[in-house]
Amino acid sequence: MSTTPAIIAVDWGTSSFRLWLMSNDGTVLSEHRSDEGMNEVAERGFETVLESHLSALSIPETLPVVICGMAGSRQGWVEAGYIDTPADVTTISRHATIVPDVARQIIIIPGLAVRSMSEPDVMRGEETQLLGAHLEMPGGERYCMPGTHSKWVSMDGAMVTGFETFMTGELFATISARTILVHSTGGEGPVDANDPAFLTGVRDGWTRPEKTTHHLFSIRAAQLLHDRGPDENRARLSGLLIGAEFAGAGIKGEEQIALVASGALHRLYQAALSECGVQVRDIDADVAVRSGLVEAWHRFSNRSGDLKRA
Amino acid sequence: MSTTPAIIAVDWGTSSFRLWLMSNDGTVLSEHRSDEGMNEVAERGFETVLESHLSALSIPETLPVVICGMAGSRQGWVEAGYIDTPADVTTISRHATIVPDVARQIIIIPGLAVRSMSEPDVMRGEETQLLGAHLEMPGGERYCMPGTHSKWVSMDGAMVTGFETFMTGELFATISARTILVHSTGGEGPVDANDPAFLTGVRDGWTRPEKTTHHLFSIRAAQLLHDRGPDENRARLSGLLIGAEFAGAGIKGEEQIALVASGALHRLYQAALSECGVQVRDIDADVAVRSGLVEAWHRFSNRSGDLKRA
Repeated sequence: MSTTPAIIAVDWGTSSFRLWLMSNDGTVLSEHRSDEGMNEVAERGFETVLESHLSALSIPETLPVVICGMAGSRQGWVEAGYIDTPADVTTISRHATIVPDVARQIIIIPGLAVRSMSEPDVMRGEETQLLGAHLEMPGGERYCMPGTHSKWVSMDGAMVTGFETFMTGELFATISARTILVHSTGGEGPVDANDPAFLTGVRDGWTRPEKTTHHLFSIRAAQLLHDRGPDENRARLSGLLIGAEFAGAGIKGEEQIALVASGALHRLYQAALSECGVQVRDIDADVAVRSGLVEAWHRFSNRSGDLKRA
Repeated sequence: MSTTPAIIAVDWGTSSFRLWLMSNDGTVLSEHRSDEGMNEVAERGFETVLESHLSALSIPETLPVVICGMAGSRQGWVEAGYIDTPADVTTISRHATIVPDVARQIIIIPGLAVRSMSEPDVMRGEETQLLGAHLEMPGGERYCMPGTHSKWVSMDGAMVTGFETFMTGELFATISARTILVHSTGGEGPVDANDPAFLTGVRDGWTRPEKTTHHLFSIRAAQLLHDRGPDENRARLSGLLIGAEFAGAGIKGEEQIALVASGALHRLYQAALSECGVQVRDIDADVAVRSGLVEAWHRFSNRSGDLKRA
């Protein structure tokens, strides 16, 4: 286990910034999180924000930085493009974009795209998690990656053969804060994965997804007619949207899914998948993205062979 | 055709106020619309707003007012309660609430409720439209009432046997303005009912409602990968949500539906229902609510028999 700083790994999303100082063998030497996501940073400049974190940690200019996430989008730092599926996650760093005109060596990992005309799709950040997940636990076929925009990914070995995004997390946030349901779901407490209202919601969303926009309104009616409280209503809303996602992903039960998640989202999705009879293989999303970033850097710098021998 | 003012009919919703001065036989003598809906009016007071309109029209204090809509909700003027389904729309005015402590005679029509524990539902305003629709064109069995919260109503003669609300209109407004799709659907132009993107959206939402939250994100991806423009994206979003509503309402095609709608919503739903092979009977929503309000007043004041003989 090395304690020599070698790589700075950054997952830079729309609303969050996470930085890890890593050794060459993937040991985490320090961690930095903030809400300086892409939306927050655009005006101050990505380099300014990154260097302020690095100088706070006294990190020398010789250390390279590898970045995944929305920092590589058109509205981000430098556009890192998309690789079309089917795509081998172990080769994504071949297409990494080098950030120009900076003192340090900084690369940004590209996203993946499904370039279909009828149902196109994109991901950015998850491709790096998938690389890490593939290294942590090879052999999975379907990966569920919950979030603001949940991804369901089909893989054959290291090859991403296809994926679908569901707007579950963003719909939950928007519907609970910006529609008539604000009166029924008020407050922002976390949803309890064991709340029967959550699990009933999952089952209703999964078995009758066509009723989702009706079931949403029914949450308001339940408050008016039956005095249902905000915690229960928020749990049901979350369950309905997650269940509808499962229906869209074609979950049949009695199958195995790799769940790439951390924290509260992991608890919710694990409970929800179990409710539908799915066997879950857990992959920690934080571990996966760090492993993916380090591996991508090694492959980019052509040192992965040497390091593994070291 | 009488030209003697006899009744003031008011449809007072969440975001709109519509007032008609009517004769006893239902002739419209004048019309007044504003955006002084419930949300707008709560602070100024309902009576102040109503009387300011009536004095602008020089309407004498002897004329009664009959109101339907959200003015009768708990957050409205005076709570007018709900009648449980099954409910006979010709008898709703028996349960009307008389507004206390006002100079004029003012009544508010109650809403309807489905008091189920698993899928409760409420309506307020549509019950009066249904009374009018029943009078205008008796014999329908299913009514589609599009709007912010679209209603699908089953009737047996004058009896409402059940209904379901879908949050279609509110979801369209919120998703296009408050999620990542704002970048793809920008602007607020009306959706063209003949746009192929609208009709394809209807078909996709109707035949694969379980994919709706995926299809929503795919609108964003289509903009990024294929440069799809905002009009087309907004049309597809509208179509997907309306199609999902049809799936939830159990539309099979080759059936007859009474469409209670006006203006732009009428055009969209008529095109969408036709796309799914449904035969549409048109009932103008404005006409229906006025007829319903006048009929409710007549029945309330026990004068309907006399008037019909006059």
